[in-house]
Amino acid sequence: MKLVTLSVDTPVGPVERLGALLGETHILDLQAAYARLLESREEPQPGRIARALLPADMVGFLEGGKRSLEAAREALAAMKAAGGAAARDIQALRRQRGPGGETLLYALSEARLQAPVPRPPALRDFLAFEEHAKQGAARRGEALAPEWRQIPAYYKGNHREIYGPDDEIPWPSYTRRLDFELEIGCVVGKKGRNLAPEEAARHIAGYTLLNDFSARDIQKREMAARMGPAKGKDFATALGPFLLTADEMPEPGNLALAVRVNGTAWSEGNFGARHWSFPLMLSHVSQEETVYPGDVLGSGTFYRGCGLDLDRWIEPGDVVEIEAEKLGVLRNRIGRPRQERHLDYSDFWKEAPSPRKK
Amino acid sequence: MKLVTLSVDTPVGPVERLGALLGETHILDLQAAYARLLESREEPQPGRIARALLPADMVGFLEGGKRSLEAAREALAAMKAAGGAAARDIQALRRQRGPGGETLLYALSEARLQAPVPRPPALRDFLAFEEHAKQGAARRGEALAPEWRQIPAYYKGNHREIYGPDDEIPWPSYTRRLDFELEIGCVVGKKGRNLAPEEAARHIAGYTLLNDFSARDIQKREMAARMGPAKGKDFATALGPFLLTADEMPEPGNLALAVRVNGTAWSEGNFGARHWSFPLMLSHVSQEETVYPGDVLGSGTFYRGCGLDLDRWIEPGDVVEIEAEKLGVLRNRIGRPRQERHLDYSDFWKEAPSPRKK
Repeated sequence: MKLVTLSVDTPVGPVERLGALLGETHILDLQAAYARLLESREEPQPGRIARALLPADMVGFLEGGKRSLEAAREALAAMKAAGGAAARDIQALRRQRGPGGETLLYALSEARLQAPVPRPPALRDFLAFEEHAKQGAARRGEALAPEWRQIPAYYKGNHREIYGPDDEIPWPSYTRRLDFELEIGCVVGKKGRNLAPEEAARHIAGYTLLNDFSARDIQKREMAARMGPAKGKDFATALGPFLLTADEMPEPGNLALAVRVNGTAWSEGNFGARHWSFPLMLSHVSQEETVYPGDVLGSGTFYRGCGLDLDRWIEPGDVVEIEAEKLGVLRNRIGRPRQERHLDYSDFWKEAPSPRKK
Repeated sequence: MKLVTLSVDTPVGPVERLGALLGETHILDLQAAYARLLESREEPQPGRIARALLPADMVGFLEGGKRSLEAAREALAAMKAAGGAAARDIQALRRQRGPGGETLLYALSEARLQAPVPRPPALRDFLAFEEHAKQGAARRGEALAPEWRQIPAYYKGNHREIYGPDDEIPWPSYTRRLDFELEIGCVVGKKGRNLAPEEAARHIAGYTLLNDFSARDIQKREMAARMGPAKGKDFATALGPFLLTADEMPEPGNLALAVRVNGTAWSEGNFGARHWSFPLMLSHVSQEETVYPGDVLGSGTFYRGCGLDLDRWIEPGDVVEIEAEKLGVLRNRIGRPRQERHLDYSDFWKEAPSPRKK
């Protein structure tokens, strides 16, 4: 399944719903479709059971585990059996409603998608591609630390500045060197602790594209104090457009990757080049700390999957698209910097050339 | 006020309550006391209003802002006026109940305190003491990076492995070099973004002791990959015993600090040695990202406020006490390592002497 979170405008304000892609053009409201299925089976409380098993928020859904996943599959299969895959049938289905009067199908072209996990409880971002890590060390005049091959290195990101498909990414006032990173995000599906790698594989709900926006000037300099990136990363992470469930792709392998800016190809790569696997990374994280449904692990970018590796820089107003085979395209426009500033970061800019070269 | 979170055993399972210290020996249940005050004013729904203004969880309370803080102060003042500070009166008060039958007063000696903020939405930990930062750099054979003085350096901690007063801290299976750090934690009281430092000061709810437990062997080596600490820190952070509200201490100044292990003094210091102030650190964090009520910022340890600076190491079963003037004592016993291991971290131990010297 390709799961999405959508925001539906209503007279009582926007409402968040959990959906699954139905063919190429529509989104099925999973809770409404499941309630309809239960009603057809003469369940006395179809809405109540559907809300319990298929909550409208992705983390709540993931917390439901296998049972909720099975209900989602059943709802989607019932809709497909009712002919929901053919264009003619879809028009008929679009007029139908759930037992509570809910819309069943939304046209993808009209829907406002959010990040599939709009509020991950935690975000960790790895450095799983050796060549990208090597080049980063080389820019500091160093060799890649041997520790990089001993355990998977990661930093903890900001789980509360999450953007979705087509959201505008604010340009932070403190950077002159905004950048993107094409990554794959792994979403945890089940609470766990001290997981062996083979066990960790069964705790993965699925995968989505992840754009780890980065402010390279401040990142480079704040990392000199050895605490890892903070302001250089924490203003924005984009996820989407959908969460591909792990039953359809147990682990991302040799997926073709591409970055485009304003429609022009900037970079291509292959996910097969990554050194660390998601089950191993998740196992490592879970040692002596609990991981929870909805937690996101980013892979890190492939080599040349960011402007830093390419020495090519985006500007305000640019449209960045990252793409991976099976995971679609995640598109974001870059905003313009706020003028107002409360702290003087000018020392941090001294070494960054200005204006940006492209 | 000295605010606490307590866990009350009931026949329907443990229940979390928000309290304030009353004198040296008792805890006032703020919601119950406020409901009682409202009842005396002939409010038709004292319980409903008290639950809305003084929720039983600390983050919910902080989200209520000035109005909730004012209600808490009123409840505490009314109880003090009723004689709650004198020992004889306390016995009378202990027999009284709130309008819903709630206990009003708990004896501190019988109460099970949790971390004052048991579930902070985010945790950031700084490196605000120059001498500790210098010594860390010196151990790597480096000078302290000049960037350390330009912006406050921090890492993002794990906001979901929080321990409270007297909780046993599990010894992570992957470390042979467990350590403590005496820090002061600053708790955010109000949502904000792009705050100037003087504005940030008004977003601080108060302060508590923070013990940033650290696994030095794995921390040292994972930080070689420049992503900051992760497994070296994320297994445990202790907070407590209470949150001292900012009206009683706008910012921690020259507070005397002390560390004891098994009752023996290991270290003393003074908080006045810190280079960065909390308002400036909070202002920095808030640039281009939102901070929320309940967020915790740790100061970092003072020089010699950890075993690493002292080259003196704790062992399983030890009792670690950290103390700061005005903020009380936070005491934790150290557990024994789990034997079971799923990942082999032996490469990470090669350089750590074993057995630990003391």
